Amino acid sequence: MKADYKSSGVDIDTGNEVVRRVKRLAQGTFTSGVLSGIGSFGGLFEPTLTGLDRPVLVASADGVGTKLRIGFMTGQHDTVGRDLVNHCVNDILVQGASPLFFLDYLATGRLFSDVSAAVIEGVASGCRENHCALLGGETAEMPGFYRDGEYDLAGFVVGLVDRSRLIDGQQIETGDVLVGLPSTGLHTNGYSLARRIMFDIAGLSVDSELDNIEPGATVGDVLLRPHRGYLSTIAPLLRSASGRAVRGLAHITGGGLTENIPRILPAGRSVLIERAAWVVPPIFRYLQQTGDVSDRDMFRTFNMGIGMVLVCAPADVDDVQARISEAGESNTVIIGRVTDGDGQVEYV
Amino acid sequence: MKADYKSSGVDIDTGNEVVRRVKRLAQGTFTSGVLSGIGSFGGLFEPTLTGLDRPVLVASADGVGTKLRIGFMTGQHDTVGRDLVNHCVNDILVQGASPLFFLDYLATGRLFSDVSAAVIEGVASGCRENHCALLGGETAEMPGFYRDGEYDLAGFVVGLVDRSRLIDGQQIETGDVLVGLPSTGLHTNGYSLARRIMFDIAGLSVDSELDNIEPGATVGDVLLRPHRGYLSTIAPLLRSASGRAVRGLAHITGGGLTENIPRILPAGRSVLIERAAWVVPPIFRYLQQTGDVSDRDMFRTFNMGIGMVLVCAPADVDDVQARISEAGESNTVIIGRVTDGDGQVEYV
Repeated sequence: MKADYKSSGVDIDTGNEVVRRVKRLAQGTFTSGVLSGIGSFGGLFEPTLTGLDRPVLVASADGVGTKLRIGFMTGQHDTVGRDLVNHCVNDILVQGASPLFFLDYLATGRLFSDVSAAVIEGVASGCRENHCALLGGETAEMPGFYRDGEYDLAGFVVGLVDRSRLIDGQQIETGDVLVGLPSTGLHTNGYSLARRIMFDIAGLSVDSELDNIEPGATVGDVLLRPHRGYLSTIAPLLRSASGRAVRGLAHITGGGLTENIPRILPAGRSVLIERAAWVVPPIFRYLQQTGDVSDRDMFRTFNMGIGMVLVCAPADVDDVQARISEAGESNTVIIGRVTDGDGQVEYV
Repeated sequence: MKADYKSSGVDIDTGNEVVRRVKRLAQGTFTSGVLSGIGSFGGLFEPTLTGLDRPVLVASADGVGTKLRIGFMTGQHDTVGRDLVNHCVNDILVQGASPLFFLDYLATGRLFSDVSAAVIEGVASGCRENHCALLGGETAEMPGFYRDGEYDLAGFVVGLVDRSRLIDGQQIETGDVLVGLPSTGLHTNGYSLARRIMFDIAGLSVDSELDNIEPGATVGDVLLRPHRGYLSTIAPLLRSASGRAVRGLAHITGGGLTENIPRILPAGRSVLIERAAWVVPPIFRYLQQTGDVSDRDMFRTFNMGIGMVLVCAPADVDDVQARISEAGESNTVIIGRVTDGDGQVEYV
């Protein structure tokens, strides 16, 4: 009985073809910091440090979670990469950092080069949108780990900020205002619950039309809509003179408003959120009603229409909203304020 | 029918407990660059740039691959993290970089906090060995993606090197010498084939003793042995005056000597490897014989006992070997030399 690597489930040649395609896609994202053509095992990036007194690197790792399953069900694999990059970039943006580079990890049971290329195409597209170089990554073929046609995808971003421009929430004071920025949908959180409600309870398929929620859109369309990246909306504000007015930024991911806002509050502060301040988008209302989900679970699972929260002093809020509006987002809304307390999020 | 997140397979409370345990483990790895206590969404690292003219960041992403399955079979989860960190650190070491920080991605079907904690304990232990801060990471619970008790693990490292000390292989010349450093076993490559041979063809289990290969050791012991990290062996050489003698370093991972050495060769260069120069360890001879694997497949799948290859001029080889010996590795061996050619690895 003769064994070789291919018969054991790993195809080095397909792997090499994927590497070549990924390399081409990555090159399309290269910014001036990338030292290309000389990196072999690691990717090389020479950051511009001019004007920075104390350069601080900000790094974050994330996955796409079970939203991937919507990609498997629809056969659309070129958007989950944008989810991933936007999620990661938002996570460092909230500390004031702009992204330098990104690396991805794609693991699959059997490597189909078209599926892998579509996934990485999405990653590359997300990187281009965020002016962030796709500096490297790993594509792993792991027979028996993933079902045919399935994969997992994770990513890792590194950004840069001067220590004096770092946003850490420590300046947040009682009476400060919470400004909410709209999400585009579920982003990448709450998909296990959303799938259970849509597919198991409501009996829908990805092709079912959701005319009562969004005319002309299918379940697949709504659930696959990419996680919004807030860099282009918020970075101009942070770089402007008004940037110092931003005392805190919270990316509303898994755990919702309930668990993400406390991550940036200093000791002795809570927040009060006015639920009437914004209209919860129809998809969330549909999920709550169909799944008979409690308010508490909704607000600690989904973003409920608010993907990013900014904290500033009341005196600065007009200016902050004006800057964000200049950057293209006119639908910011004051969703609450900071109170004395012990890191709680209360809803009225 | 009432739905909540827990009944859909995701347990936020267990997740939060894991986050707390991971945080404690990570704190044990913190180096002076970590800005701790203020990072919320991203991890913060302020690198020391003193003495660097042109700081270059070197980054790499990797997974553990199907070696994870040996962990599942033995129930030993605290070593795969060391595999991961050492693999990543080796990948940036070959370009001359020392690691600054590491982030991990752990994905599982159902989160068992003890298994997750053991995995991250291994990651933290690998980070401590490499003086590298575990700056962040993601632990994802993805119901239906992974079988019970199974998981995937990926990691990302960022290191730093001055541009003038970057090792890129471009100085490699015909006649240069290849110095091999011993591996500790399979490291993290070739496990799909190794498992097929050991379990399917030879009918062994992880508890079978391998007395003919290593007295007293089981299959599980031999296959789980951690990927060797070469930082402590090679970094002192690189930092010394003899460091400039190192013209190239290749980490022998998936693809073996055959595919990894060409990654650092400049145009117009090949290498000739003398197979009699070192004794291939018994585990590889056993796998080849039992699986009836061709030489070609062995050398492009496994490291064959050589985990790292260093390239230098013949005049420098004694000095290079002496420095490595001072750092604790006296078993370096000259395994071949550089020839004119087209990026090939030939064996005699």
